[in-house]
Amino acid sequence: MEYVKSKVRNIYDFPVKGVIFKDLTTALKDQKALHIIGKTLSDLYRDKGITKVIGIESRGFIGGSIMAYELGAGFVPARKPGKLPADTVSRSFKKEYGTDTIEIHRDAITEDDIVVIHDDVLATGGTMAATYELVKSMNPKKIYINFIFEITALDGRKALPAEAEVTSLIAE
Amino acid sequence: MEYVKSKVRNIYDFPVKGVIFKDLTTALKDQKALHIIGKTLSDLYRDKGITKVIGIESRGFIGGSIMAYELGAGFVPARKPGKLPADTVSRSFKKEYGTDTIEIHRDAITEDDIVVIHDDVLATGGTMAATYELVKSMNPKKIYINFIFEITALDGRKALPAEAEVTSLIAE
Repeated sequence: MEYVKSKVRNIYDFPVKGVIFKDLTTALKDQKALHIIGKTLSDLYRDKGITKVIGIESRGFIGGSIMAYELGAGFVPARKPGKLPADTVSRSFKKEYGTDTIEIHRDAITEDDIVVIHDDVLATGGTMAATYELVKSMNPKKIYINFIFEITALDGRKALPAEAEVTSLIAE
Repeated sequence: MEYVKSKVRNIYDFPVKGVIFKDLTTALKDQKALHIIGKTLSDLYRDKGITKVIGIESRGFIGGSIMAYELGAGFVPARKPGKLPADTVSRSFKKEYGTDTIEIHRDAITEDDIVVIHDDVLATGGTMAATYELVKSMNPKKIYINFIFEITALDGRKALPAEAEVTSLIAE
């Protein structure tokens, strides 16, 4: 994992002044780092009977779809409002300024599913917390939460439900 | 591929009246269909020495990242303006109403790369044509173009450069 870490780029003052943005694109474009990320993410869940991996729009689609493929599961996108064409369930949540909403197709998750929700970076945790609650309302058997990179200084785990099993490949 | 086809859902009048939207989420969430899609997309390029797969935001991230992983290549996102944090190259193109812009990190593609650009659906081809020109301006050794689903009635191939090698898993 040190190799992957060495490929993550810090971008200062993005998207706004004062923020250090963790840019994973420099790891994803690297053949070896992408392989390690996909393999290690999947290895965490090989014995869990995962049937669906949910990726959060849009960077969560990358690791999420690789995990789904590698685990022999299906892939489900959690998207911004108006992007999914069929009947959806949705949940709104507060952001620093205003609110945001996340949507999933109503028929995407069933009560027989064992689910991992994946996003690339855990920052404040607001989007993941809302997605978790939304998925929970669909009553799957079990829900895991997963990130490639956790920014520990932002303490995003506090925003996530205490009962959730949360794993990050890199935490720093 | 008949199995995958049977899992694609038609959505009438989305995003606007008169359009039949090809909804691939019903195929992607299906374990067997996702496996066939990922495996078959990758098999098309196994002997091509692919070093990078470019996925077009955001649905192109799904098949694109699976291909990159399966081929042992790197993954590069082509994104809407303002989403990529480092120095980018960009290209604007006309849409039915107004213009749109696509961006790639300037350091994402080198002259040694052999590239596949992937998107989920070929409709009018405008976004892919612009992405192709943008990638071409970065001078990789070779560029392939790839879709899961081609809507033949829209004749999007006409918009794509004549020299490009274009492959779709499903054309109908």
